[in-house]
Amino acid sequence: MTTRQDCQRQDGEDPLAPLRDLFELPAGLIYLDGNSLGVLPKATASRVQQVINAEWGRDQIRSWNSAGWIDLPARIGNKIARLVGAGDGELVVADSTSANLFKVLSAALDLVRADAPGRRVIVSERHNFPTDLYIAESVARERNLELRLVDVDEIFAQLDDDVAVLMLTHVNYRNGRMLDMAKINRAVHAAGALAVWDLAHSAGAVPVDLKGGGSPEESADFAVGCGYKYLNGGPGAPAFVWAHPRHTARMDVLQLRQPLSGWLGHAVPFEFAPNYRPAPGIARFICGTPPILSLAALECGVDTVLAAEALGGIPAMRAKSLAQTELFIALVDARCRDQGLELRTPRDTRVRGSQVSYSRVDGAFAIMQALIARNVIGDFRAPDVLRFGVTPLYTRFTDVWDAVENLRQVLLDGEWREARFNQRALVT
Amino acid sequence: MTTRQDCQRQDGEDPLAPLRDLFELPAGLIYLDGNSLGVLPKATASRVQQVINAEWGRDQIRSWNSAGWIDLPARIGNKIARLVGAGDGELVVADSTSANLFKVLSAALDLVRADAPGRRVIVSERHNFPTDLYIAESVARERNLELRLVDVDEIFAQLDDDVAVLMLTHVNYRNGRMLDMAKINRAVHAAGALAVWDLAHSAGAVPVDLKGGGSPEESADFAVGCGYKYLNGGPGAPAFVWAHPRHTARMDVLQLRQPLSGWLGHAVPFEFAPNYRPAPGIARFICGTPPILSLAALECGVDTVLAAEALGGIPAMRAKSLAQTELFIALVDARCRDQGLELRTPRDTRVRGSQVSYSRVDGAFAIMQALIARNVIGDFRAPDVLRFGVTPLYTRFTDVWDAVENLRQVLLDGEWREARFNQRALVT
Repeated sequence: MTTRQDCQRQDGEDPLAPLRDLFELPAGLIYLDGNSLGVLPKATASRVQQVINAEWGRDQIRSWNSAGWIDLPARIGNKIARLVGAGDGELVVADSTSANLFKVLSAALDLVRADAPGRRVIVSERHNFPTDLYIAESVARERNLELRLVDVDEIFAQLDDDVAVLMLTHVNYRNGRMLDMAKINRAVHAAGALAVWDLAHSAGAVPVDLKGGGSPEESADFAVGCGYKYLNGGPGAPAFVWAHPRHTARMDVLQLRQPLSGWLGHAVPFEFAPNYRPAPGIARFICGTPPILSLAALECGVDTVLAAEALGGIPAMRAKSLAQTELFIALVDARCRDQGLELRTPRDTRVRGSQVSYSRVDGAFAIMQALIARNVIGDFRAPDVLRFGVTPLYTRFTDVWDAVENLRQVLLDGEWREARFNQRALVT
Repeated sequence: MTTRQDCQRQDGEDPLAPLRDLFELPAGLIYLDGNSLGVLPKATASRVQQVINAEWGRDQIRSWNSAGWIDLPARIGNKIARLVGAGDGELVVADSTSANLFKVLSAALDLVRADAPGRRVIVSERHNFPTDLYIAESVARERNLELRLVDVDEIFAQLDDDVAVLMLTHVNYRNGRMLDMAKINRAVHAAGALAVWDLAHSAGAVPVDLKGGGSPEESADFAVGCGYKYLNGGPGAPAFVWAHPRHTARMDVLQLRQPLSGWLGHAVPFEFAPNYRPAPGIARFICGTPPILSLAALECGVDTVLAAEALGGIPAMRAKSLAQTELFIALVDARCRDQGLELRTPRDTRVRGSQVSYSRVDGAFAIMQALIARNVIGDFRAPDVLRFGVTPLYTRFTDVWDAVENLRQVLLDGEWREARFNQRALVT
């Protein structure tokens, strides 16, 4: 059985270990919630101060040009593109994941309608992240389409001639199951539909290859993702949006727009023309003026992930992440046996993201509160899930060991039954 | 004729003068572009640092509850509500002005459709801010409605039985003309339509009474506005959205949603329910997770406007703003005569916002560049407009005098004809 000393040795041998020093991590904190909010990079505070004091305070409006504010959505987008297998100029930062999903679902449906107006179904997974389902519900309602929610294992069987778009999250937020994007894309395209992916729990955490290794069949069609989880962009950081260049090219030909046609997605915004003409390429997915302070912080976060490139990059991160989730599962198997914890994350590492989730018939909320009181931060997801994310940039093997040890103590001592651990707050 | 000494005396007597000390204003800067980007409040840098270091860095995800991040959209919304005649709990901060306009236009059209499905026209002003027109264009396209653009003086004549929604900007971005909101609302309601207002150039600058003094006929129906102009929220600060409570109540009864139905506008977001159920009231207009750093900066900006309340509030700001635009116009009349400047802003103060605009057949862009090189910051709006905003919180009467003196010199010396002043940048 792995001991804490084994974990210390693993930390000592970890090629990514130096990256932890890029972050502000309070002493004693075991943070396993980077899949909800990544921790603060050390570079962020001074960069945001620079934006506030020098760019905004000293130069005011002039900084749109002189400090390159106008370029930030594309510049940060190009950096994120490197993490998800997208090309330069194909991805921009904008708005929220939800708003971006509205844009790409609408665009995908318009493209399908141009060829196959009879396809009137959006398929998604029943257990997809709620905001994705809510947005798809609205898009379906506005266009009088059907939103068909299916179990994840039924996806392939559902791809019939009625389907216009399959919308999925690559790594499930609750159980951490990762889907085979290339295989699903191939099936979607064979069925004559388009694939829209939410990378919220993927970007910066697991390998993503949106372009399918150059294969049109295996490439994704549209994608969105989140800036504040594994990209460490800060609370509510702006999100990102990607479209395969074949689709933006076709949108040009067909004169299609996405519906959130704000002025910064216009071909020539500062002409102040009365009619909308979409910018070429992905820039048409920009809507209004972006929040520059939050964008600056996001760039610092993305830079922490890019810093891993010199140390093995995404493959090294993936190897470490899987080693840590394997360790977590093995330690719980061995040390928290018969405590009612049911593993919800796949044991098969090929279909596992960068988290471990357990359900428990009762007490899941209180157990997580008790852990948090011990400075072990994971999160609870209704109705009964304990979720522990590992972030290879800063999670140590000893953190995993200590987290499970705390979990063991909370369970064995019944500590979680104390009343104070069952007080629900607004945000769980 | 007013002299610079007269202006100094006016500054000495200005009851709002102490508020200038709330801002970081570099020495020698004459900033007349607060209608594009308000200047930096002194409180902002340390507040954002606190959010970064203490709330995000030290407490991470816990700050959603402990630091009240989850309440920010409503808390800042309530502060902005005080500036626009809205009630507590009626206004939230969210997304961009463009995205919010998409939401409220959609909601207004749904409400009209419920009673009068035959009304299929959105009316707006031909010279409205482009992003408003682009969004209306998309909404009309999605719903197969007509977007009818008319001259501002034709609005009343256009309110026929086909009209569903009239969408206007209260103060025109280019010429600074302010519309009579109560009178227009009354006409819109008499015609059986709804009124949607963009307050981008109004909130924090001129009196706005969304509730029409309690008269349902004279109240607005929906409104959106901008955080980074007169509210001093910083570059790309989040925007705001308001709906009259009679409409959110009716949306509840009719089970209507706005289409950007993201998870934070759900009635119980942390239940992670698979189906969307809108939050009651204005909270349904929230979409995704908001950018907290930019929200914190916005709150500091809004607080600078609220600080005026103790010194006379909006009426005092309005009086100062009009005195300054009057002064600007009188000085240009007297000192820049025969220089080809044509006043585009109304001479009638009752219909003037907080800016002065001139057009010039040639050279407007270069003239503004020459002024900016002299540290007098206004802006150029295509094709031929020089725009000077006054911000009663920090603009001095001597600033107005000095700005016009610089303008006079740039014009008389032909300084603007230098080649360096005609180099266009991305952002004009």
